[in-house]
Amino acid sequence: MDEILLMLPGPTTVPKRVLEAMSQPIVNHRSALFGDILTKTNNLVSEVFKTENKSYTITGSGTAAMEAGISSIVNPNEKVLSVVGGKFGERFMKIAQSHNIDAKELTVEWGTAVDPKDIKEALDEDEDIKAITVVHNETSTGVAAPIKEIGKVMKNYDALYVVDTVSSLGGDYVDVDGYGIDVCVTGSQKCLAAPPGMAAITLSDDAWIANENVNSNSYYLDMKAYKKSGDKTPPETPYTPSVSLTYALYEALKIVKEEGIENRVERHHKAAKATVEAVKALGLELFPDESVSSATVTAVKMPEGITDKEFRGTTRDKFGVELAGGQDHLKGNVFRIGHMGVVSYKELAITFSAIGMTLKGLGIDVDSGAGVKSITESYL
Amino acid sequence: MDEILLMLPGPTTVPKRVLEAMSQPIVNHRSALFGDILTKTNNLVSEVFKTENKSYTITGSGTAAMEAGISSIVNPNEKVLSVVGGKFGERFMKIAQSHNIDAKELTVEWGTAVDPKDIKEALDEDEDIKAITVVHNETSTGVAAPIKEIGKVMKNYDALYVVDTVSSLGGDYVDVDGYGIDVCVTGSQKCLAAPPGMAAITLSDDAWIANENVNSNSYYLDMKAYKKSGDKTPPETPYTPSVSLTYALYEALKIVKEEGIENRVERHHKAAKATVEAVKALGLELFPDESVSSATVTAVKMPEGITDKEFRGTTRDKFGVELAGGQDHLKGNVFRIGHMGVVSYKELAITFSAIGMTLKGLGIDVDSGAGVKSITESYL
Repeated sequence: MDEILLMLPGPTTVPKRVLEAMSQPIVNHRSALFGDILTKTNNLVSEVFKTENKSYTITGSGTAAMEAGISSIVNPNEKVLSVVGGKFGERFMKIAQSHNIDAKELTVEWGTAVDPKDIKEALDEDEDIKAITVVHNETSTGVAAPIKEIGKVMKNYDALYVVDTVSSLGGDYVDVDGYGIDVCVTGSQKCLAAPPGMAAITLSDDAWIANENVNSNSYYLDMKAYKKSGDKTPPETPYTPSVSLTYALYEALKIVKEEGIENRVERHHKAAKATVEAVKALGLELFPDESVSSATVTAVKMPEGITDKEFRGTTRDKFGVELAGGQDHLKGNVFRIGHMGVVSYKELAITFSAIGMTLKGLGIDVDSGAGVKSITESYL
Repeated sequence: MDEILLMLPGPTTVPKRVLEAMSQPIVNHRSALFGDILTKTNNLVSEVFKTENKSYTITGSGTAAMEAGISSIVNPNEKVLSVVGGKFGERFMKIAQSHNIDAKELTVEWGTAVDPKDIKEALDEDEDIKAITVVHNETSTGVAAPIKEIGKVMKNYDALYVVDTVSSLGGDYVDVDGYGIDVCVTGSQKCLAAPPGMAAITLSDDAWIANENVNSNSYYLDMKAYKKSGDKTPPETPYTPSVSLTYALYEALKIVKEEGIENRVERHHKAAKATVEAVKALGLELFPDESVSSATVTAVKMPEGITDKEFRGTTRDKFGVELAGGQDHLKGNVFRIGHMGVVSYKELAITFSAIGMTLKGLGIDVDSGAGVKSITESYL
C-alpha cells in the first residue's frame, strides 16, 4: 500500500497483470504473431464499443483518436456542430478548427448536460452540418452527456454522430450500434485500466463512405491508412505501433471481458453513487447537477477557506491519495475524484478517509469519518 | 535463447532492464514525479542528439515526429525540397504534401546516397524553398546520407535543415548542433533499443522562429503545444503521454549514456562492417553501394532461385532469426539485416549461422559456415 493511490480521471491504477504483460519481449509488428494479437485486441475493442464495425488502435492519446476521427470524415471548410460544455468538448471543436473545419459551437453551461433538443434545433437551422461532436463523459466538469437520447435525434439527420468515450468506455453505458454512433473514440488509460498511450476508434459504414470523399490534412492520423493496413491479413498498423502497449491493452480488455461489460459498468455506477453520497455526507457540494453527474468522475466544489494546493497536497503527500484539480476557470474551485477502472469500496474507503482527515486537519468543521461511513453504508 | 532474435531495422530487441522499467506503476502525468522523469528523459535525448536545444518526446511512431517537425515549421503552399531515395524519404515528402506544403522531390536512385551538390543546386535554383527534408538512414535501401556534408551546404542558405534520424540515432554519427540541423526527429525502437511507440524531436532557434509564423493543421502534432507544456516547471506533455514508454525510453537512454554515445556508434559501425564482410563471404551481393552502406541496417540482394518467403520463412521458423524483407518495388528482391541497439558478435554469429544454413538448405551452392567464419575474423 506504499504506492500513491491514483483517484484521477485517468491515468488510473493499472492491474499488475496488465503491467506485467508489457514486459513480454518485443515482436516484429509486421508478423503473423503480432497480427494475431492486434486482431484479438481490435475485436475486443469492438465488443466493448458494442459494434459490428471494425475498430483500430492508434499509438497516441485519446486526443489523437479525436483528431483522426473528425479529420477523416469532414473536409476543410465543411461544417460541424461541436457541443461544448467543458474542456474536452472545447478541445474537439479546436481540433476541427485546426483542420480548417467550420466548427460551430453549441454552448452548454459547465456543470450541466446538453439537451438533445438543442442539438435538434441546431441541425434544423443548418442543413450543411456534416457531423456533430459530443463528449460522452466531460471529465473537466464531471458531467455525462445523454448520448443514447442524442442518438435518437441523430437518426433523423444525415449528419454523422461523433462521440468521444475516452473516459466512459468500460465505465458507463456505451452502445455504438444501438445509439447509432458513426465515429466513436476512446483511450486506454481510463475505465479500461490500461496504461496511457493507446487510443482506439471505430467508424460506421456511413463514416467510411464520408471518408472516401475526404482529403485529410493528417498523415499519422489519416484513417484511410489505418483501414488499408488494418484490413490486411494478418492486419497491421500503418506506422510502427507500440507493441508493449498493445500487449497491455489486450490484457486489460481480457479483464474487462472476464468481469463482463455490464457488470463493470454497474460497478462504476455503484462507485459513482457511493462517491456522491459520501461527498454530501462530508457536507461538500457537487459541482455538476447531481442528475447528470458522471459515472466515472465526481467533481466537487472546493470547500471555502482552503486552497487546492493545501487540500490536494495533503491528500497526496500525507495520505497517499492523488486527486485531480480543476481545469481552466475551474482551477482551484473544484477537485475531482476519478473512480475509473480498478475501483471498489476499498479505494473509496481509503479516499474518503483521506479526504475526511485532510479537511479536518485543515481546520474545516467536519466529521472526518462521515464520508467513509457513508461508503460503508453504500456498499453494505 | 528460445525467443526469436529480431535482426530487423526496428523494432529491435529490448534489454530486460528496459522491459522491466515498464512494469513500474503508472503515475499522474501531471505530477512533479513524472515531470522529473520527463525532464531527465528529454535532457538525455538532447545529449544524444548533441544539441543545446530542448527536446520533446511524442507518444507515437517516428512518422508522428516527422509530421510534427515539418508541419510546425512550414505553412501550407510554401515550398520544401524533399530528398527521396527510398521509402522513408518518400514518406517525408508525402507528409509535407498531406499538409498542402509544396514539396519538390529531389530524386536519388535507390541504393545510392544524395550528393550534397545536388541539394546546393536545387537551393540555388529556387530561393523560395523554406526547408529541406533528409532521411539520415534510409532503412528501405540500407543507405546512409551524408548529413554532415549536407550541413556544410545548408549553412549558406536560409532554408531550414530537417533530418530524420529515426533509425540512426545512437547507431551512427549525429551531431545536431555541429551539423547545423534545425529539426531532428527520432524513434525509440531502433538504435536506442527502447520499445516502439515513442518519438522525439528537437528544434533549433531558427526553427522555433519559423514556427511562430506557422499555422499548423496538426493538433496532436502541433509543436507549439509541446513547447508550451514542455516549458512549464515541471514540464508536461500537452496530451496524456505513454507513462510506461517514457520509463522505458529513460532507462534505454541511461544505458546509452553508460555505454558512451561514441562507443555505441563505433560498436554499430563495427557490426555493419562485419555484416558486410560476412555477406560477401557468403557470395551474396549488397543492394546499396558499399561506400554508403548504412551503419545500422544492411540490405542484401536476394540470391537467385529462392523466394523471400522461403528464405526469411526458414531463418525465422527453423532458425529463430527474424530478418526484414524488401519494401515497395524491392519486395522479394532484397532482404535486410538490422544491426541496431543490442548487437555484438553474438547476434551476428547466430544470424550468419542461420543465413548460411538456410541458403545451403534451400539448395544454394554455398559454404554454410563462410558468413559466421567471417564474423569471427571481424571480431577477433
